[in-house]
Order: sequence, then structure tokens, then C-alpha cells
Amino acid sequence: MNAPDHQTVLINLDDRSYPIAIGAALFDDPLTYAELPGASSALIVTNSTVAPLYAQRLQAALQGKYPNLHTLTLPDGEAFKTWQTLNLIFDALLQHGCDRKTVLFALGGGVVGDMTGFAAASYMRGVPFVQVPTTLLAQVDSSVGGKTGINHPLGKNMIGAFYQPLMVVCDLATLQTLPQRELSAGLAEVIKYGPIADLSFLAWIEDHIDALMARDAKALAHAVKRSCEIKASVVAQDEREAGLRAILNFGHTFGHAIEAGLGYGQWLHGEAVGCGMVMAAHLSQRLGLVDAAFVQRLTVLIQKAGLPVTGPRLSEADNAGRYLELMRVDKKAEGGAIRFVVIDGAARAAVRSAPDALVREVIDLCCT
Amino acid sequence: MNAPDHQTVLINLDDRSYPIAIGAALFDDPLTYAELPGASSALIVTNSTVAPLYAQRLQAALQGKYPNLHTLTLPDGEAFKTWQTLNLIFDALLQHGCDRKTVLFALGGGVVGDMTGFAAASYMRGVPFVQVPTTLLAQVDSSVGGKTGINHPLGKNMIGAFYQPLMVVCDLATLQTLPQRELSAGLAEVIKYGPIADLSFLAWIEDHIDALMARDAKALAHAVKRSCEIKASVVAQDEREAGLRAILNFGHTFGHAIEAGLGYGQWLHGEAVGCGMVMAAHLSQRLGLVDAAFVQRLTVLIQKAGLPVTGPRLSEADNAGRYLELMRVDKKAEGGAIRFVVIDGAARAAVRSAPDALVREVIDLCCT
Repeated sequence: MNAPDHQTVLINLDDRSYPIAIGAALFDDPLTYAELPGASSALIVTNSTVAPLYAQRLQAALQGKYPNLHTLTLPDGEAFKTWQTLNLIFDALLQHGCDRKTVLFALGGGVVGDMTGFAAASYMRGVPFVQVPTTLLAQVDSSVGGKTGINHPLGKNMIGAFYQPLMVVCDLATLQTLPQRELSAGLAEVIKYGPIADLSFLAWIEDHIDALMARDAKALAHAVKRSCEIKASVVAQDEREAGLRAILNFGHTFGHAIEAGLGYGQWLHGEAVGCGMVMAAHLSQRLGLVDAAFVQRLTVLIQKAGLPVTGPRLSEADNAGRYLELMRVDKKAEGGAIRFVVIDGAARAAVRSAPDALVREVIDLCCT
Repeated sequence: MNAPDHQTVLINLDDRSYPIAIGAALFDDPLTYAELPGASSALIVTNSTVAPLYAQRLQAALQGKYPNLHTLTLPDGEAFKTWQTLNLIFDALLQHGCDRKTVLFALGGGVVGDMTGFAAASYMRGVPFVQVPTTLLAQVDSSVGGKTGINHPLGKNMIGAFYQPLMVVCDLATLQTLPQRELSAGLAEVIKYGPIADLSFLAWIEDHIDALMARDAKALAHAVKRSCEIKASVVAQDEREAGLRAILNFGHTFGHAIEAGLGYGQWLHGEAVGCGMVMAAHLSQRLGLVDAAFVQRLTVLIQKAGLPVTGPRLSEADNAGRYLELMRVDKKAEGGAIRFVVIDGAARAAVRSAPDALVREVIDLCCT
């Protein structure tokens, strides 16, 4: 018997290489996991929203392979991406007598994947794990490339590890149960790949934005596959973000400020990134890198994806100042200088700093 | 100008290779740190016992290199090797606006080194760090080889990372201020290297145990250097403890049970390892691997080093059962089977399981 029909994108990282399997009816088929190493125990980590939909089906698929199989259900949401929640995973691993060969399965969106991955990186200094992303955002971005971690009250994703999974299972059927707001949030990260890496993909998204919003299976399959290909190529060149990989953070510097400033979970990560891309595009224009028409084109597409294109006010007294303050703790910052991902309209992106005055102009323009 | 007089042991790990500098008057000399990469900021992490002795001198040595230099003083002791204390490091890093190039300096013993190393591994998914061990145990064992981590209430060092420092600075002068109990604890790890790797070193330790206990500078220098050489050789062959490296845990399976059973900090780690080596030697004898004379020889040496050679009772009802229960959560355990490091009297060690009945005999024999 063979694994169910699917396409595969390979992440090339020497002895840490792994496949992303993309298809429908994948995650609950035991054959999907046939090549994984055996172990006496496994732990599925999921959240309270995803568990009722998919946890039992994943358990059924895995129970023949792992004699001691347990499921841990975490509270759902970015607000729970904390030490406290992470510790629930360690508690469960130790209570169930899990050892160094125990396999962790992250079943859910980006928060579940990031926390489970960091738990896998840290439990007994590293156990294997598998990503089973059930949101569009996780399938096209966060489950791929090995970034794991948790938030700190003073900054997003400030504590974590680069730690690669054994495989990523992108089951497109799970996207059919996604709330519309989460679908839009995922489209933000899909759109991102266009301006930083592939203008023909950007044009394809523009042509298929209605089909994507309507969850057309073929359109979603292509969007997930092409996004994973671009991410795989970037990550293979720069796993630990010494340089190039930072371009994947297009829109994220402004976006992280929105998330932190409003309180984690008020806006979805993808919503903040959508709006952040509009702001980063305006900044690129003010730096003379891109023309107004391209900024407008991107803004229209982001809006069609159901995403916000104007930023929230984070302070009545000094809104731009508050954005700047929050952005100074971004991981790309160096010696207190904020660094932005900028675009040039020709699918090239770069990381650079910008004068505060210019950044203030952009914030004033984009926040109503 | 050159770095102060010292010897160097190199840890060979491809692009993660680094030197261990061993000598006197090293840690407070700016030249010791001349080759480290520059950064706008650095954080010295130390504890309340070491800070009054050495923190200002390290600050003075580093202040020319790092414009924003801060010191964080943690409470002292194994009982504080927790999430809560680790978070104090993250809080300080974020409050001081530390970025991805910030260098962490671990100034203290094994607890400070393990926690600072794990903080460095996890802050922004990895920043550089330097070990400045001030205890014998940290100089000969815990600061070398990249094991970092914290304890969980259900098990020692259960959460952590393999993460190598940029360099290790073993200043032998700092050993002169060490309490005698800490000196003995360090000697446990020095003695360890004999039965697992080098019988001539074991004989040398026997010949120099009085000099070592009297802190003879030349004897300490040789003990630190030879211990680091043996550890470097083992770690270079098996950085992530896929196999060989586990032999460095001789005495640690029983030792961790003692530490966890009494409550962290009641016995020093080295004291528990000293007693644990006696127990592991008796187990090796019962498995037919080593003769009674070798067990006796090792026991005498451990006793001369000022270490306990009889185990504490961890339960009045079923002492051996309690030991077994605690040992089942050891990181070497697999599928619930406890695995012990055993010796053969010819400087070869192996990792294997043993019948519970035999382990019970050893515990009954060694606990009074």
C-alpha cells in the first residue's frame, strides 16, 4: 500500500531535511506516517477548537504505531502562547513517562505548532516532532522552516529555537472548517510571497483571489504548494536567519507592533501582517524603492483578501511614538535601530533601517 | 599584547568548535576576551554568592568591549534552577533592549552556567554566550560540551538544549575561594573520568588527592586540563548524546535519584554523583563486569575526596522502590527501562539496563 495521493515539497537542510506532504485526506491516514521512526510513546498537542474536529481521527491514525499515545488539549489563542502553557506540555510528557524517542505531533494552527515545536526542541534537550497544521497560515508559513517559540510580555516570539520537524502534513481538507477570518489571515502570508519573491505568483493570486476566498480546492492546493516552495528555497539558503531569511518577515515589523500594542489575540497574526505589509509598502515607496501604483496594487489585493489595510491607533497621545517603541524590541533590531523588510516592485526584498521621521509619516498615513 | 599565560583545550565541533582557556588571572583580563565578536551589549549572569567576589572584576574587564554592559544576580542554588529564575534572565535581556548579537556571560557554577546557556540558546532563538566557571565542578564538567537546561519538579535537567558557548574561561584562581564542600563536589566529576576513560589519570588522582584537597595550584591545573581533554574527546565524537557521550553520566543515574528524592539542593550535585559512582560500581560488580578490589579502590578515593559513599534513605516504607521510581524518569531511560552507566575496571564504560532485583540489592547494600 502507498501513502494517499499528495504532492511533496522537500526542505533541503542536510541531515535535517524533511518533506512537506500536501493533499486531501492525508492527516488521518496511517500510511501518511509510515516512514516515521517507531517509539513506545507519542503525544498529540492540540487546542480546544481543533480537538473536537480532528483529534480522534489523528489518534486513530497513530494508535497502531505508538502503544502509549496521549492527547493534550491546550487553550486556544495567541494569548496562551506563554511559559505557563508551554509547561503544560512538559508536565504531560513527564507524567506519561515520555522518553527521548517520544514523538510530538502538533495538530492545529501556528500557536500550537510554535509551542509544540519549542517543547520538542527542549524536552530532554530534543525529541522528534511532526507538524500537522490545520490553518492556512500554518500550512503556508509557520509550520515550515523550524522556527519555534513563545511570546514574552515584552515581545512576540522572543523565546524559542530553530528546530526542524520530521515532516509537515498539510491536509487541505482541514481548511474547509476554518473560520473565514482565519482563512483571510492565512492569505496574508500567501500574498507576502509575491512581492518578496515571485511576481507571477502575485499575479496568479490576484487572478484567483475570489476562488481562494471561496475555498476552491484546486486554488488552495496551488497556493499552499507554491508558498511552501518559496519558503523552502529561502530556508534552505539561510536556516538560522543570518541574512536572506529575514525577507520572510515582510510586513511583520509593523505587524508585531500592532499585535503587541493591542494585546496578543486582539488581531490575528495574519491580520496584523496584512496591514503591516501595506505600511511596509508605503515605507518602501517613501524610500524611493517602489512606485505608488505597486503600493496601490498590493493594498487592493490585501483588502480583497478580507484583511485590514489601515492600522489601529495604539496611543492617543503619541501613536507613531508607541509604534516605534514597540518595534525597537523586534528581533531584527540591532543596537536599538529598527530594521524593516522593504520591497522594490521587482520581487526583490531587503532588510534596512529607515529614518524615524519617515516611519512616523507612514504610521500617520496608515492609521486612521 | 598577548592573552595572559594559559593552556588551551580545543573542543572540535566543526563550525561550533571553541577553546577552553585554563590558567590563573584569566577571567579579569580584557585580553582574554579579545577574540570575541563585538556587540553593542552584553549581560553578565551570576549569583548572589559569586557576585560580591568576582562580578565587578569581570565587568571591568568587559566594559571596554561592550558599551551597554549589565549584570544580573540570581539567587544561588540548585533549588533555583527553574523556569521562574530563567525568566529573570529573559526579563533582563528585554528590559535592557538586548538584541541578537548580545553576548551572555555565565559567571558562576553549574547552575548559573546551565541556565545562562539555555537562556542564550532560547533568547531570540539563539545569542552567543561565554562560560566563566568559578567552581571546580563547572570547570571540569558542566561548562564544557554545551549541555544547558533547567530542572522540572518531576526530573533534573529535563528541559534544555545542546548549545555550545563561544569559549570557556577556567580561571584556577577562583577555586581558592571555593567552600571545601564545593571543592569535594567538583572532585567527584574529576574522579569520574578515571574509571570511564583513563586508568593512568585515576592513578594520578589517587597520588595527588591530598594536594587536590589542599588546592595545590599545579595539581588543580592538571586535574582541570586532563578532565577537559577527556570530556572534549567524548563530546567531539558524540555532541548530542546519541551513544558514547552517555558514559559521562557514570554515577548520575543513582545520583539524580538522590538529588530529586531529597529535594534539589540538599546534597550538592557532585556529592550525589560521588555516592552514585559507588552504587554504579557495585552494580557493575554484580553484573560481573568489575571485581571487588576495583570497587573498593574507587570507594576509598571518593571517600578521601570528602564525598559521601553511602546513600540516603529516600523512603522508610520502600527505599529501593523509591530509588527505582525516581530513576525511571532519567533521560537515559527508554520505554520505562532504566539504563545505567557501568564500568569494567579497564577504563571502558557502557550503558545498559539491569534487573530490578539486582538494582535493589545494590541500593540496600549502599543505603544505611
